Amino acid sequence: MKTEHISSAFDADLEHIQALMLRMGGLVETALHDAMTALQQGDLELAERVKAGDRVIDDLELEIGAEVERVIALRAPTAGDLRTVLSVLTMASTLERCGDYARNMAKRMRVLEQFRYASTLNGTLRRMSRVVESMLADALDAYVSRDLDKARDVIDRDLEVDQLYNSLFRELLTHMMEDPRTIAPAMHLHFIAKNIERVGDHATNLSEQAIYLVTGERPDDARPKQDVTSLNLSDLRDG
Amino acid sequence: MKTEHISSAFDADLEHIQALMLRMGGLVETALHDAMTALQQGDLELAERVKAGDRVIDDLELEIGAEVERVIALRAPTAGDLRTVLSVLTMASTLERCGDYARNMAKRMRVLEQFRYASTLNGTLRRMSRVVESMLADALDAYVSRDLDKARDVIDRDLEVDQLYNSLFRELLTHMMEDPRTIAPAMHLHFIAKNIERVGDHATNLSEQAIYLVTGERPDDARPKQDVTSLNLSDLRDG
Repeated sequence: MKTEHISSAFDADLEHIQALMLRMGGLVETALHDAMTALQQGDLELAERVKAGDRVIDDLELEIGAEVERVIALRAPTAGDLRTVLSVLTMASTLERCGDYARNMAKRMRVLEQFRYASTLNGTLRRMSRVVESMLADALDAYVSRDLDKARDVIDRDLEVDQLYNSLFRELLTHMMEDPRTIAPAMHLHFIAKNIERVGDHATNLSEQAIYLVTGERPDDARPKQDVTSLNLSDLRDG
Repeated sequence: MKTEHISSAFDADLEHIQALMLRMGGLVETALHDAMTALQQGDLELAERVKAGDRVIDDLELEIGAEVERVIALRAPTAGDLRTVLSVLTMASTLERCGDYARNMAKRMRVLEQFRYASTLNGTLRRMSRVVESMLADALDAYVSRDLDKARDVIDRDLEVDQLYNSLFRELLTHMMEDPRTIAPAMHLHFIAKNIERVGDHATNLSEQAIYLVTGERPDDARPKQDVTSLNLSDLRDG
């Protein structure tokens, strides 16, 4: 499903921009992974590195924006080529937000590492994080290789993330109601879980963009949405 | 600070795209306002309308994307004109996310309207929401009129939102620790507050984009960041 290119110079430009985006994606995955490791091991130094590293991710977004501008001005791409270059802008902005989530997770370590009980929840969080990291990697891969099956597989996997998030949410509520001292750290764990869940949503967005570039269709409508915590609390609210 | 335009046809195109963006911004403001009203008055029907209305906001983002593509292919803008058109893409994606936050707020009404105590917090939430709505409106206004002072004023006002958020966070923790039955609704209120706070961040992003278009400088570095809830919980965690 390759689009026709106006020149091989454009191909080289596009490859360069995509390489920047893949580098950005790799840094975001690492940031998520390191933020989770820092949480699990109470590693404040690693958390600091994640926070500091977000600047590199932000700078890459600006660099990609400048490159896209340069390539459009220089090569005047049209049709599919133009759409491809423009899609990188939105994807880079999505990745930048995922980087922010990782930084935000790392910022909460200082509160969490004081609380032993948090470790019991780490299993679920770690699983969520692993799934989401692989979704991000595969979404970018699907985009670059125009692999529809891989893109659809990423979208399917978001269901698992949503299910893990929902079970963690219930677990946290139980903890909080049983022991009020866990309320503050549980609020932070909840945020960390929600951030990971959002990265999963963003990976889904990236996959949808990949599908759109190949098929011209937006699969949004069919996407299952499984964060049900806003609907089914009636059985939990009295503890 | 007008950039030189390649043709008056381009001017007309740009005006059309900006009009679409302003319409999108207006719908997002209304969605936020209605979501808050629905929360305050327990108006489930209004909440449903907010949820249904998000589709119109999403469609406008797609329409803006298609228009940007069309204008670039047709007019081949360069330099400042190109940057202006491209900036609309990022801004529309930001507005789309703000619309998602409003929809997300509306989705939580069904849980919240059962809880009387929520109304005591409505004052702070409503204030946050009002500030954020005006920030959004002013950010778009500053962008269209290239008004640096107005853009900087929006960025300053984000401090107030962050302070309101922090005080609400503390208030919620107190409620939860005093009465475990409030834990579940408090978690939802917390999300609503965080969503509003994020819209404030996005309004700040829009203002920074407006400033960048005029000055070529990114004011990110100087931005004060005042969500301190991740840092100052030690005095709260034992109730």
